[in-house]
Amino acid sequence: MGYGAIFVWETLGTALLILLGTGVVANAVLKNTNGNNGGTLFINVGWGFAVFTGASVANPSGAHLNPAVTLGLAIAKKVSWDKVPFYFAGEMAGAIIGAMLCWATYKLQFDKHDEPQNTLGIFSTAPRIPGVAWNLVTEIIGTFVLLIWILESPTVKAGSDGIPQFGNSALGYAGVAFVVLVIGTSLGGPTGYAINPARDLGPRLAYVFLMPIKGKGDGNWGYSWVPVVGPLVGGALAALLALALPAS
Amino acid sequence: MGYGAIFVWETLGTALLILLGTGVVANAVLKNTNGNNGGTLFINVGWGFAVFTGASVANPSGAHLNPAVTLGLAIAKKVSWDKVPFYFAGEMAGAIIGAMLCWATYKLQFDKHDEPQNTLGIFSTAPRIPGVAWNLVTEIIGTFVLLIWILESPTVKAGSDGIPQFGNSALGYAGVAFVVLVIGTSLGGPTGYAINPARDLGPRLAYVFLMPIKGKGDGNWGYSWVPVVGPLVGGALAALLALALPAS
Amino acid sequence: MGYGAIFVWETLGTALLILLGTGVVANAVLKNTNGNNGGTLFINVGWGFAVFTGASVANPSGAHLNPAVTLGLAIAKKVSWDKVPFYFAGEMAGAIIGAMLCWATYKLQFDKHDEPQNTLGIFSTAPRIPGVAWNLVTEIIGTFVLLIWILESPTVKAGSDGIPQFGNSALGYAGVAFVVLVIGTSLGGPTGYAINPARDLGPRLAYVFLMPIKGKGDGNWGYSWVPVVGPLVGGALAALLALALPAS
Amino acid sequence: MGYGAIFVWETLGTALLILLGTGVVANAVLKNTNGNNGGTLFINVGWGFAVFTGASVANPSGAHLNPAVTLGLAIAKKVSWDKVPFYFAGEMAGAIIGAMLCWATYKLQFDKHDEPQNTLGIFSTAPRIPGVAWNLVTEIIGTFVLLIWILESPTVKAGSDGIPQFGNSALGYAGVAFVVLVIGTSLGGPTGYAINPARDLGPRLAYVFLMPIKGKGDGNWGYSWVPVVGPLVGGALAALLALALPAS
Repeated sequence: MGYGAIFVWETLGTALLILLGTGVVANAVLKNTNGNNGGTLFINVGWGFAVFTGASVANPSGAHLNPAVTLGLAIAKKVSWDKVPFYFAGEMAGAIIGAMLCWATYKLQFDKHDEPQNTLGIFSTAPRIPGVAWNLVTEIIGTFVLLIWILESPTVKAGSDGIPQFGNSALGYAGVAFVVLVIGTSLGGPTGYAINPARDLGPRLAYVFLMPIKGKGDGNWGYSWVPVVGPLVGGALAALLALALPAS
Repeated sequence: MGYGAIFVWETLGTALLILLGTGVVANAVLKNTNGNNGGTLFINVGWGFAVFTGASVANPSGAHLNPAVTLGLAIAKKVSWDKVPFYFAGEMAGAIIGAMLCWATYKLQFDKHDEPQNTLGIFSTAPRIPGVAWNLVTEIIGTFVLLIWILESPTVKAGSDGIPQFGNSALGYAGVAFVVLVIGTSLGGPTGYAINPARDLGPRLAYVFLMPIKGKGDGNWGYSWVPVVGPLVGGALAALLALALPAS
Repeated sequence: MGYGAIFVWETLGTALLILLGTGVVANAVLKNTNGNNGGTLFINVGWGFAVFTGASVANPSGAHLNPAVTLGLAIAKKVSWDKVPFYFAGEMAGAIIGAMLCWATYKLQFDKHDEPQNTLGIFSTAPRIPGVAWNLVTEIIGTFVLLIWILESPTVKAGSDGIPQFGNSALGYAGVAFVVLVIGTSLGGPTGYAINPARDLGPRLAYVFLMPIKGKGDGNWGYSWVPVVGPLVGGALAALLALALPAS
Repeated sequence: MGYGAIFVWETLGTALLILLGTGVVANAVLKNTNGNNGGTLFINVGWGFAVFTGASVANPSGAHLNPAVTLGLAIAKKVSWDKVPFYFAGEMAGAIIGAMLCWATYKLQFDKHDEPQNTLGIFSTAPRIPGVAWNLVTEIIGTFVLLIWILESPTVKAGSDGIPQFGNSALGYAGVAFVVLVIGTSLGGPTGYAINPARDLGPRLAYVFLMPIKGKGDGNWGYSWVPVVGPLVGGALAALLALALPAS
């Protein structure tokens, strides 16, 4: 697959992922919605099947949707390094577009919200208890789980052109949805499970620089590098372990 | 497949979809039920697997169950235009029948309900914050997600006779159930995610003209065109994008 | 498959179904449990995957687990009439065994319960608003949905020996679990969705005649025929419709 | 597969299972998390898909992850007895590692918790109402359900080398996730459904001897043998029944 097609499919798939993922948080957090106070499981289910939807559509490019996935697959020699920048670019572009579509979906709710300064949490993650080292550990562990599953589960097959084809198995992208669901229920408690640099940084940029929300807060830039670095480290560690595991 | 068979299968499938979909709202909204105050996730799960059930049964005709799906598939050249009216007719007939079956299921609860004027919301959608332009945007985005998934996910294959066969893939109709579930959790907050003109208009007509509910309210006709026009526009936009995407 | 094997497999599968199905209600209703007040979705999920578990195990005999399923399949000419009594017998035996196992699982909770007279609802259904005619309608509609799905969904294939093999499809028994889940969320509000004569009558008999619960209530026999007759009528109606539908 | 590879894969899979399973309890129980008070269904969903994730990754060794599964498969002649100790060792090692990773994920929450003496319940099970005989019955029944499903469901095929290959079926490891989910909703009320000696004993050892939690409680050793013995008995009983069932 050409560089341009990779960019297009990753942009489309990541936009769907982020629209639906930030959408469920908006539904739960904003007033005057049907999902207000929907609860944790509600949000975890939303993010899980957001991955299902975006990944299904981005099947032609391998459905990375996440720089930590791209990095892990590159280290594990499942995708060639020259394509990595085009994956990264599509993932970031899609994340920004998806966040803007979420804002458009909930435009009237944002206008009526009485605490607009607290709306960054709809788009980007923040730790419940700040602490850089342990917040990093949490994000590393969460992303490690995602990548070791992607690399070792029998639902992933390397297709032609070096692009992994998640969709070849029977469960298809439902498998990765289940894994993201359980990462959310089980490892999302402390930091909100970014486990994806684009998922966190793209919407943060969109929130700060693009969204016309009156009275919105700042970008919490002091924390913003944690959900970028942590997932990349976690993905790399899983790829290194995968290379060391005995052949199955 | 002949025109008559299309009508029959779409009527049956859409009746099941609407019976189960409006049923879960009735269960959550009405008093003296087991599901009273069941919550948002409860309703989203109900609608998701309502689609699964109705679509599985309507497999022979391609399981559109939704004029926005039919329109999108026609624009994307997956179904021929001469069949479109028969799909639309079956979808509307099924939606009316399904709504009446929901009323029959909950007949005793409707009789005892102390706010009968507020029961339209069981059958048709309404915006949490009215605003025609942005309500349309919300419905367009929601239906766009549904159609781009149907058109681009590897779970859909065009079968003989131009009728798409959603059921050929491994996940079958569970895939579209997951997508409708996440549209509900993530994009259903502002307008209740009609994303289907028949799903909204059919039950509205049944409510106003057919159901013998004492003291029932009016049909909120001023809003009724939004969940018809929005989904059709969203479905058409997704089909146009699909035609422009690079070959996978 | 011989009559004896049918009896054995249906007994085993139905026992698992009823153990897990009545178990989730016990978990939600009884005090001193982890699931106390678990809510409606919790109960619906439990019953849905109770069907998955029992049906997977009873795959060799076709996994009816329900006299309304057996009757519907016989009318639709998918199982021969001479085998019907052996299915019925296994279904009833399994339902009684499953209810007793549920009681054993929650023995200490039953002993400590302060309203033992109200524990019949753990094992058998009761209408939220009594009214024989409309309670029957609700059970007929619910069972009709189950049977029309079983008969028309592409996940069911008739195997050798006339026994339907639900498990041949990709989703296998997850499909019927999803359908039972949505029948619960959407049609279970008024009568608690028996949709299965054995599921209701077997545990009722076990409760009244076998369980040593101090201070337990009576069997509510005046209502007990409704969840037997309603499901049988609903199953028969679905089978008659299936025979009349155009070939797919 | 060699003994060493069995140990490695079982360690990895069980570590993922226990990390995600104890993680969802930590998320629900600890303060200052996103999942605080997430509810029973939340916890059951987490454990169910924890099994999915760990089992998918441990597919090469057959994904036992549970000494009761290993014992049942050995009795049912699906795995040779000489391999059993290596399965057991991997399962225990993985359970200890997984519990430590859970502690690391929630390190900051443990530090701030105001009732550290009550945190054993995050890692190991305890009965709601103590009573050794009936607690054993509950664990035996729960594990019996798990094993009879693994042994009789069509989703399990014995592969080469005597190692069962759960992943060959269409649903793959989603099937066992559904079964564990429903065991949780339906049979988990009285004792917290250990149904796995390693799942309970490994984290208990890690809690008492390895975790640096200030003010932590003791290991409740008086009860600790119940969730070891009960599951082994339940698994053995299911295997004996499986050997006696008529050929399917």
